[in-house]
Amino acid sequence: MTDAKTVAIVGAGPVGSLAALYFANEGWNVSLYDRRNDPRLEKVQGSTSSTGKSINLALSHRGIEGLKGASMKLSDMVTSNVVPVYGRMIHDTKGRQESQPYDVHGQHINAVDRGWLNVVLLDEIDERPNVELKFGHRLLRCDFDAKRVKFITKDGEVDVNADLVVGADGAHSAVRNQLMRAARVDFEQKYIDALWCEISIPARVTEHGREEYPLDPNHLHIWPRKTFMLMSLANIGDDKSFTGTLFMPQSNFDDITYPQDLLDFFRTHFPDVIPLIGEEYLVQQFFSNPKGSLVSIKCTPYHYLDRCVLIGDAAHAMVPFYGQGMNCGFEDVQQLFMHLKANNTVYSGLETYTLARRQDLFAISDLAMANYVEMRSSVTSKMYLARKHTEEFLYKYFPGLGVRTLYNMVSFSSVPYHIALKRSIRQGQIFRGACFGVGLGIMGVAVYGVLRFKKIWQGWVWS
Amino acid sequence: MTDAKTVAIVGAGPVGSLAALYFANEGWNVSLYDRRNDPRLEKVQGSTSSTGKSINLALSHRGIEGLKGASMKLSDMVTSNVVPVYGRMIHDTKGRQESQPYDVHGQHINAVDRGWLNVVLLDEIDERPNVELKFGHRLLRCDFDAKRVKFITKDGEVDVNADLVVGADGAHSAVRNQLMRAARVDFEQKYIDALWCEISIPARVTEHGREEYPLDPNHLHIWPRKTFMLMSLANIGDDKSFTGTLFMPQSNFDDITYPQDLLDFFRTHFPDVIPLIGEEYLVQQFFSNPKGSLVSIKCTPYHYLDRCVLIGDAAHAMVPFYGQGMNCGFEDVQQLFMHLKANNTVYSGLETYTLARRQDLFAISDLAMANYVEMRSSVTSKMYLARKHTEEFLYKYFPGLGVRTLYNMVSFSSVPYHIALKRSIRQGQIFRGACFGVGLGIMGVAVYGVLRFKKIWQGWVWS
Repeated sequence: MTDAKTVAIVGAGPVGSLAALYFANEGWNVSLYDRRNDPRLEKVQGSTSSTGKSINLALSHRGIEGLKGASMKLSDMVTSNVVPVYGRMIHDTKGRQESQPYDVHGQHINAVDRGWLNVVLLDEIDERPNVELKFGHRLLRCDFDAKRVKFITKDGEVDVNADLVVGADGAHSAVRNQLMRAARVDFEQKYIDALWCEISIPARVTEHGREEYPLDPNHLHIWPRKTFMLMSLANIGDDKSFTGTLFMPQSNFDDITYPQDLLDFFRTHFPDVIPLIGEEYLVQQFFSNPKGSLVSIKCTPYHYLDRCVLIGDAAHAMVPFYGQGMNCGFEDVQQLFMHLKANNTVYSGLETYTLARRQDLFAISDLAMANYVEMRSSVTSKMYLARKHTEEFLYKYFPGLGVRTLYNMVSFSSVPYHIALKRSIRQGQIFRGACFGVGLGIMGVAVYGVLRFKKIWQGWVWS
Repeated sequence: MTDAKTVAIVGAGPVGSLAALYFANEGWNVSLYDRRNDPRLEKVQGSTSSTGKSINLALSHRGIEGLKGASMKLSDMVTSNVVPVYGRMIHDTKGRQESQPYDVHGQHINAVDRGWLNVVLLDEIDERPNVELKFGHRLLRCDFDAKRVKFITKDGEVDVNADLVVGADGAHSAVRNQLMRAARVDFEQKYIDALWCEISIPARVTEHGREEYPLDPNHLHIWPRKTFMLMSLANIGDDKSFTGTLFMPQSNFDDITYPQDLLDFFRTHFPDVIPLIGEEYLVQQFFSNPKGSLVSIKCTPYHYLDRCVLIGDAAHAMVPFYGQGMNCGFEDVQQLFMHLKANNTVYSGLETYTLARRQDLFAISDLAMANYVEMRSSVTSKMYLARKHTEEFLYKYFPGLGVRTLYNMVSFSSVPYHIALKRSIRQGQIFRGACFGVGLGIMGVAVYGVLRFKKIWQGWVWS
């Protein structure tokens, strides 16, 4: 990265915007393109219907580290505008709530507004003289060999020069399609049998007319119902509302045809939610809000020579159940620059990035998928809780053992995802082995006790 | 399929052309589109460099059944213009040849010229009044809801009406891309670490100036070398040549930089091939012919409502090692019509087609992948041959047992691929069990013999 090169970043969401800052810091000539209009010219608060994306994101360790790498000031600003979330709040069908803290030392994840975060990043970009923002530009074609990129705007086609094209344009990435024409890319796209539907839970108005959160804002609320679930996260801002998301198989959605079906369904499974939303508003939202699908995408390589690289959802769209999508994307940027700086050429930087990043991206993708089962089902299992409590006990009182819950490693550390996964599997084996050992021990004691008792008994009878 | 509907078939290769005949037979209004020009206006004999596809295909049972479903006359015509191939001819590094017949009853697969077969199908289409052929049409977009399809031609964009769009446009299908925008399609694309390069083996000219095949034309010739292989199939036509294909990991290709490297490589691994081609022609071909990649694609569903369906490589590009690509594509067409006829609506016909076909397409895709190992390595293993001979023995002398080799079921029957795979796995388990039993029996006899002998020996010594 010796002389000033030109990079075209496609996608001005959080990940693409962060990448623009990193490239700007390193002295590149940066152009950041997006097919949408500047979100700052529209209303800031995102809404599902317009973007097809969840409005709340969970920012955790890796994401914050990513922000820090671009600007400490920026990172501080973001982390002071979040709602800290210390654990899960499990709601049962009777409306009872049980808190499951994420960390024994009180570490927390952070609910943050996607739209707001995006605006903060774009404002920061405005301060950099070597970044150009280009909205309303839809990618048409990349000619990587000629270093040309073609966009279409409302005024016609635009042809630009780019030494490097960065694809940060999400799950249905146009850059990835171009990459797949140039390179031999292994690719996998899998839809899970669940749709999601956002349902807003409005603020509660107190007797004195003040607005309050309808639920504890410092928890991620979950209503786990084995094959489906409702979850909800506090919104940042003055209105003190929550956004709930219902995740269910398509067939469950299909079964709910009339308002009465919906109310019956909620009365059975989420009785405590109805009074928070109100029947009318619940019905209105459920039937009018869009039902989103959930796709998981893996691919490799992420790059083509020194001409193109994919980051964020474009490289690894994952299901949202680990709250790692954006965090992982921010870590992509930070890792990418680690490799670019450690290598003499962009070519070898991208090469080592793909090789090193692949196993971590595959691991977090699998973990996110597995966490859907955990969130909607395992969190209520005794064995799951026994293991969680054991690991937390060891983590707290015997930190030298290095035992941490998987969630802890993923959310509160930079331990590479694939190593976190490996460690967790080993801990699981040890835990099951220990359970077996304890079981054997108890049996041994019992047998010894019986024999001993028999002897005493016999001695007593016969003496 | 009551009143005359309109179908737009995209891709006028063998599978798309066969589909056009089936739809025409059922009274549909058929339009068959292809981005290329009419191959009949160019030279008939395909060449790798222009099409990126192998010029020889292996037509077997399923393919012939597919042709029969369109026209018995057509099928008879095709099967009388093939070179029958009765087995594999294994070449070792000393140049020795060993025949491994495909079938104990002499059933054979058929080498056929891709270009010629395509032309035969197009000529047959010309006889049908309800099929329009449209070359030079590249698909731009499908609006399935409005039943509109947009193509681009050299004269500009063309907009057509289609109740149903059939994607028969190969591994990099444009129709599939459109389908993936409309439906939630699970998709997997995997490149194997092997490239291929075609090398022509010219006819041998006898003393009397007559041209002869340089190798036995009734065998598929294989030079299995564990991690790579050369294979070769006879060409149909007057020139009596063979087309060889070298399959090797990219790194092996990279290692061959100079003509001398190539000749050393061939002298070590394929010494008997050099005199057949000649050093100069070999060098010229290797360095100038393109190196193709091999991709395996799985997806599901294959359809969207009653508006779109994928067949052939567009639905299931597979590696070429089972010689089933086109056969499977022809079977797709035949199966698709079975389902369309068995259902009242196109909608439910496509629905049941996807559900029923999926497991077979996944099975043959996996089998093709596994056959790469078989062809380049297993065919020389004693265990492999022992199992093959055992299965063939049982097939020949105890047909009532229903034991057949996997190859036999795949190539000479219409047993659904996934059932063939299942049966083969079971036969393998039984075979290994029997080997174990025979081993135990031999050991038992040996132990008995030793004891017996000891007794006799002892009796003899002591008596």
